[in-house]
Amino acid sequence: MAQEERQKKLVEEITPMEADFAQWYTDVVKKAELVEYTSVKGCMVIRPYGYAIWENIQRILDGMFKETGHENVCMPMFIPESLLQKEKDHVAGFAPEVAWVTHGGSEPLEERLCVRPTSETLFCEHYAHIIQSHRDLPKLYNQWVSVVRWEKTTRPFLRTREFLWQEGHTIHATAQEAQEETERMLDVYARFCEESLAMPVVRGRKTESDKFAGAVATYAIEALMHDGKALQAGTSHYFGDGFAKAFGIQYTSRENKLTYPYQTSWGVTTRLIGAIIMTHGDDSGLVLPPAVAPVQVMIIPIAAHKAGVMEMARSVAARLSGICRVKADDSGNSPGWKFAQTEMQGVPLRLELGPKDLEAKQCVIVRRDTREKVTVPLTELETVVPALLKAVHDGLYRRALENRERHTYRCRELEEIPQALAEKGDGFVYAMWCGDEACEDEVKEKTGVGSRCIPAEQEELAETCVCCGKPAKHMVCWAKAY
Amino acid sequence: MAQEERQKKLVEEITPMEADFAQWYTDVVKKAELVEYTSVKGCMVIRPYGYAIWENIQRILDGMFKETGHENVCMPMFIPESLLQKEKDHVAGFAPEVAWVTHGGSEPLEERLCVRPTSETLFCEHYAHIIQSHRDLPKLYNQWVSVVRWEKTTRPFLRTREFLWQEGHTIHATAQEAQEETERMLDVYARFCEESLAMPVVRGRKTESDKFAGAVATYAIEALMHDGKALQAGTSHYFGDGFAKAFGIQYTSRENKLTYPYQTSWGVTTRLIGAIIMTHGDDSGLVLPPAVAPVQVMIIPIAAHKAGVMEMARSVAARLSGICRVKADDSGNSPGWKFAQTEMQGVPLRLELGPKDLEAKQCVIVRRDTREKVTVPLTELETVVPALLKAVHDGLYRRALENRERHTYRCRELEEIPQALAEKGDGFVYAMWCGDEACEDEVKEKTGVGSRCIPAEQEELAETCVCCGKPAKHMVCWAKAY
Repeated sequence: MAQEERQKKLVEEITPMEADFAQWYTDVVKKAELVEYTSVKGCMVIRPYGYAIWENIQRILDGMFKETGHENVCMPMFIPESLLQKEKDHVAGFAPEVAWVTHGGSEPLEERLCVRPTSETLFCEHYAHIIQSHRDLPKLYNQWVSVVRWEKTTRPFLRTREFLWQEGHTIHATAQEAQEETERMLDVYARFCEESLAMPVVRGRKTESDKFAGAVATYAIEALMHDGKALQAGTSHYFGDGFAKAFGIQYTSRENKLTYPYQTSWGVTTRLIGAIIMTHGDDSGLVLPPAVAPVQVMIIPIAAHKAGVMEMARSVAARLSGICRVKADDSGNSPGWKFAQTEMQGVPLRLELGPKDLEAKQCVIVRRDTREKVTVPLTELETVVPALLKAVHDGLYRRALENRERHTYRCRELEEIPQALAEKGDGFVYAMWCGDEACEDEVKEKTGVGSRCIPAEQEELAETCVCCGKPAKHMVCWAKAY
Repeated sequence: MAQEERQKKLVEEITPMEADFAQWYTDVVKKAELVEYTSVKGCMVIRPYGYAIWENIQRILDGMFKETGHENVCMPMFIPESLLQKEKDHVAGFAPEVAWVTHGGSEPLEERLCVRPTSETLFCEHYAHIIQSHRDLPKLYNQWVSVVRWEKTTRPFLRTREFLWQEGHTIHATAQEAQEETERMLDVYARFCEESLAMPVVRGRKTESDKFAGAVATYAIEALMHDGKALQAGTSHYFGDGFAKAFGIQYTSRENKLTYPYQTSWGVTTRLIGAIIMTHGDDSGLVLPPAVAPVQVMIIPIAAHKAGVMEMARSVAARLSGICRVKADDSGNSPGWKFAQTEMQGVPLRLELGPKDLEAKQCVIVRRDTREKVTVPLTELETVVPALLKAVHDGLYRRALENRERHTYRCRELEEIPQALAEKGDGFVYAMWCGDEACEDEVKEKTGVGSRCIPAEQEELAETCVCCGKPAKHMVCWAKAY
């Protein structure tokens, strides 16, 4: 009875998405055991299941970084106040939201240290030490660490005071090389989101008002969540030689001239886990793209006490372990409870195996995304399982793309924007812009959607700005955002 | 000319070990490009080559943790002061050396937060949230993070204010299970040191005065460095139910009784890299055990401009890439410079390939540890290279063990201790002890060696304490230590 009650609780306690999206999100991260709150306000525990998703993200991305020639390093977590202040735009952007260490043991520090909100200043100091000649360039560095930004309002994965991320920091002899790097890494992020997270993204450049503090240009990938809000899933910054000048980084060129090098930085965070939840999740919980699912196939024995069932479940798990991440649930819980938990945790495929299946030498596989059931002869598992995992990925991607297209509105007049949002729900608004910050502000004020990016793939929707009617410079992607 | 000068500099600037061991160590970490200093006192940049060693350590250890049923999680980096204070021995041990965050942005915090020096308190808070029933036990958690301890004197890898580590934290239904876990993880560490770092260790229990703050028992592995000092390479703590009581962690047992569970924690740090340097290094620089060497085989083309040489170097690299970590040095530097750098960075095998080798379809392989040279037909590389890597590992382990045995002194009288140290150099002293802290202090005061551990493998050297002559309880391993 206690078990049945727990099972009922598991299913009932998740708020339907339509009723309250924010509460649905909170329920899912909690019930799927991704995170737990702590007494440190705005910080969270990432639990084993949540952390295993992050480990898969890390492993795949780290491989992509290394393939493109990058090396991992580790910088200190502290930045002396004077070092943070060396680049004026940068400090203006970050100082208001950093945590300050003022004491070591019982003694006050001579100079206070901030806990890194990002590490440009530390990388610059290091580059100034190690770069002398053109032979020392480029340096293509990355680190996997956590950073701290003292946010007022926080939500698990989406906005926390401490979050995990990677930050790439590269330095090049020429502006062109650095610009190419900025775009290359945006492309790596976009490919990763599409190929591993089944999440389509819009690639684009941020407007001036939305740039990273200290950057010449910021590029981003934007994804559309279930509730029609945009989520910035990754950014890549081109710095020109601004940081090099502020930090006195110079190298001797082939022509024997002291020259300032050019820099970039780029990052993605544990926010990606929030993006996965809000792109693919449903009212039964999480739905995980196979590439990052900690368990891709959960084997659930039916009537596990009957002769041979548990043995067969284990033997199928052993067979499949070479081709996918598979687990046989041998806990004492009921199959119903196991089904609910497997659904809640978004395991892509559920493999059911009972006494009758044993006799018929088959099993039943149920897709988490569509709930489609197929009966599969045990001899064919090695071909069917990978094919089904691919089908889940493709299905998730296709539905996410269709959803985005259904909620992308091309507007030529300002009035069309609130109309479209009211009629069809929140989403991406594509509309022309003159490039003037005043118009950017006015659009936001009048319609509620802000500029997300200037998409790389431009469309000529009109010749004039949707706001002021002056000649348009760009098509902008507008949306409400996380 | 400039290049030759650099090469000369590389070799000359490293202080001989015999002349000044501490300076030799500092030279090696710098010249092998493992670390670089920063403006954050006591913190360091771990450079790509140093970090790649750590990544190999992580990968192997993480595999061993997962094989023994452990899961990774991530706790916040901050601990509220009130949480740190819940276990009185623990706070007494750590409060004097923590960094305190007092401000978030421009606002003072209501309660100051320390940057974790270790995370027992956070794990306990989390366990109190998630553990209700005996079905929730055990939890076998680990995290890979950095921690901060505000040390006065620091040295790269050996003692830094911030360092990278893993901390395992487990919780069990019974004392016996927890004790077994404590020993199991000490065993994992010892096996890792011996099998992957080629570093023999002494396993033992710490005396009462040297226990971890809040532990019932602390176990450690101790290794002997080139200079005869001991280095604590890993620790494993048994907590009993002390933390559970302090943090109110209780579970309902099978008998339906509220019960306190039992806990452990265990950790190793980037200190292991310091241990590798001081166990295997020589006057030409680093000597890396193959299992953690970022590059196991460096291919150096001789007369690289001659037809076919560079092509062959690349093709051999491609062939070997499936069986080892291999790199072909295609930089414009001279072979002499490349040799020196490969030596400095401790690459286990150097593979030389020139025009004459090309004709004879062979190459020359030089071992870093013994400098032995062998001429190898190219067709046999796939069998010879793995065998040589194994030989390097075995040779390193054997020499380290021989060195330790040569510098392990069994002393029955107090006077024998300074005598042995003066005659044969610093090392491990094995001597009997009554168990009294006063004697422990007196031995240290009179001979300079402190208690490192009570080795698991006891020898009956005498019946009485080396210090007071009362009946002996244990044989202790004494040494000067890092």
